[in-house]
Amino acid sequence: MSATVKVEVGLGDRAYDILIGPGLLAHAGEEIARRLPGARAAVVTDENVAAAHLDALKAGLEAGGIAAAAVMTLPAGEKTKSFSHLQDVVDGVLAARLERRDIVIALGGGVIGDLAGFAAGIVRRGMHFVQVPTSLLAQVDSSVGGKTGINSPRGKNLVGVFHQPRLVLADTDVLDTLSPREFRAGYAEVAKYGLIDRPDFFAWLEKNWREVFSGGPARTEAIAESCRAKADVVARDEFETGDRALLNLGHTFGHALEAAVHYDGARLVHGEGVAIGMALAHRFSARMNLASPDDAARVEAHLKTVGLPWRMADIPGELPGAERLLDYIAQDKKVSRGTLTFILAHGVGQSFIARDVPASEVLSFLMQSRPG
Amino acid sequence: MSATVKVEVGLGDRAYDILIGPGLLAHAGEEIARRLPGARAAVVTDENVAAAHLDALKAGLEAGGIAAAAVMTLPAGEKTKSFSHLQDVVDGVLAARLERRDIVIALGGGVIGDLAGFAAGIVRRGMHFVQVPTSLLAQVDSSVGGKTGINSPRGKNLVGVFHQPRLVLADTDVLDTLSPREFRAGYAEVAKYGLIDRPDFFAWLEKNWREVFSGGPARTEAIAESCRAKADVVARDEFETGDRALLNLGHTFGHALEAAVHYDGARLVHGEGVAIGMALAHRFSARMNLASPDDAARVEAHLKTVGLPWRMADIPGELPGAERLLDYIAQDKKVSRGTLTFILAHGVGQSFIARDVPASEVLSFLMQSRPG
Repeated sequence: MSATVKVEVGLGDRAYDILIGPGLLAHAGEEIARRLPGARAAVVTDENVAAAHLDALKAGLEAGGIAAAAVMTLPAGEKTKSFSHLQDVVDGVLAARLERRDIVIALGGGVIGDLAGFAAGIVRRGMHFVQVPTSLLAQVDSSVGGKTGINSPRGKNLVGVFHQPRLVLADTDVLDTLSPREFRAGYAEVAKYGLIDRPDFFAWLEKNWREVFSGGPARTEAIAESCRAKADVVARDEFETGDRALLNLGHTFGHALEAAVHYDGARLVHGEGVAIGMALAHRFSARMNLASPDDAARVEAHLKTVGLPWRMADIPGELPGAERLLDYIAQDKKVSRGTLTFILAHGVGQSFIARDVPASEVLSFLMQSRPG
Repeated sequence: MSATVKVEVGLGDRAYDILIGPGLLAHAGEEIARRLPGARAAVVTDENVAAAHLDALKAGLEAGGIAAAAVMTLPAGEKTKSFSHLQDVVDGVLAARLERRDIVIALGGGVIGDLAGFAAGIVRRGMHFVQVPTSLLAQVDSSVGGKTGINSPRGKNLVGVFHQPRLVLADTDVLDTLSPREFRAGYAEVAKYGLIDRPDFFAWLEKNWREVFSGGPARTEAIAESCRAKADVVARDEFETGDRALLNLGHTFGHALEAAVHYDGARLVHGEGVAIGMALAHRFSARMNLASPDDAARVEAHLKTVGLPWRMADIPGELPGAERLLDYIAQDKKVSRGTLTFILAHGVGQSFIARDVPASEVLSFLMQSRPG
């Protein structure tokens, strides 16, 4: 495992390692047993991921002496982040008679990680949890930092807990089974870390993105640097009372667009919404005279170069009007006491939390930015 | 409010006050607003408690400028601690558009406190939470310490989170509306704190229990001392990785008996199960030559004096056989890796955590202790 990179998340007595590199599934049991000797595990996954990777994970667990006491294979897709599937997973873990020192393992993308992590956080008021993320998005974002949850009919991720994993195993080989579109969507979150506060990383990505897409050491390095960036923010502000909100760069506009297409993945997946959202956040920052239009143009150009959507016109089909889009923004859970909070930027790698952004400015910006 | 006693729970940045005394409902808004200015509240209660105390709480909130944005009145009883009622409460809080800095207030006994606290712990990954306990059991036990949760078909309290309240308001006047049986059941948990590690308190209770039952300063003092005892343990071991298990004195036998009567409150309520469980724990300790039989007799005598059940024969109706009772014990969530953990005692006020208690000893003790 010489190609494995280790990133430590510094959270005191809840500190944990993120291991990133090729072939890690085969070492899953060994790495888990080193940290949680004698634990039994329930594996939670979805139908697509199970077909591609479940056997490899089970073999890796067995090789390290970790017993898979239960395997729960759920339908793939965002709808699985529901109360009823949460209840099913909780019941499956209890049926396997797992105890607090046993483990729930999430094998999958963000949906499985969020759901399984929530279940691990509430069974017996908190069991151990291990993330084995299989999408780029999950490897660089959702599997790190302890946010877990499900959706409510009233909005996404409105119900959940902070529950840190004990270990994250990001096997870079499994990303080869992703569709190009899915890989690109995850790449939006990689670029995000450069845009938040790592301008050198963004410049490196502008130069090396082809190697990140094609695999090998540059991919591992991009994922590791993303995890380092996220781990830094999380260690500073685990429960999102301050700086952690920076990770929402692109997400307020992005979530509103996802809601506007009713979470129709054929039209827009999460990472694509974030890509458009980041471009809009930078363009809006320029419009508010907070940053140079050149910076916004640079962000847009890179997203376009890698094949990501970067403007609302890139979303197939009709979008609702600007006022309706503003409604979607105002329903977002990051809205506080009726004022609008956005992550804006003074330039590439210079993002900040802007509170009390006037809704009227947002509305007229949306009117200009909407196609047609 | 000169008669109010304040007990502080020392949990660093999650420290909070327990206020104990007569007439506190009228000051609810004032006390909450002092700690959480400008917050809005959702009140969760049950039908019985609402009839007796909801108007008084609402008036108290209003007087202090705290808006009750929603009131949810649920059916009374243990069955309410379910996934479906949890989902209802979560949805009610979201429907009222409460944010992370707003409050869920639990007005009720342990069922309402556990359920509402769990909802507060998971809506938006954690909102503020205030406990207004209306039973003696809730005032001295469940409202303090942050354990929240619901039942699963596989056992009680198997699903939940640790979520500390921001304030506990224990109005001793509301206890006057309890039935004598319900008050006595709560008293079992008061006596428990003496038995765990406060022999002087137990001796004080032996002398002053009549005044505790009849109300006035002795009642406030007994509740305050119970809260101090619990707060000490919780501050030492918030997440129950060690000493906090001492609070389970009487609960392993007690839970098994509750399960054995299928949680039929007509036959046995929780505090009664704890009373019998404490007596059994002391008698079993004597049998294992850990303590003198005189101590067990002293515990039994006090429980009997105050009118609590203290032996299995005091439970009306048939009980299952000893082997079945052992099964109920082994399904308890405190069972770890197949070994039995009990809280036993070297004497009054000298409890300790006994791991690896041989199941065979428990079985023959149950055979002797069962009636008939």
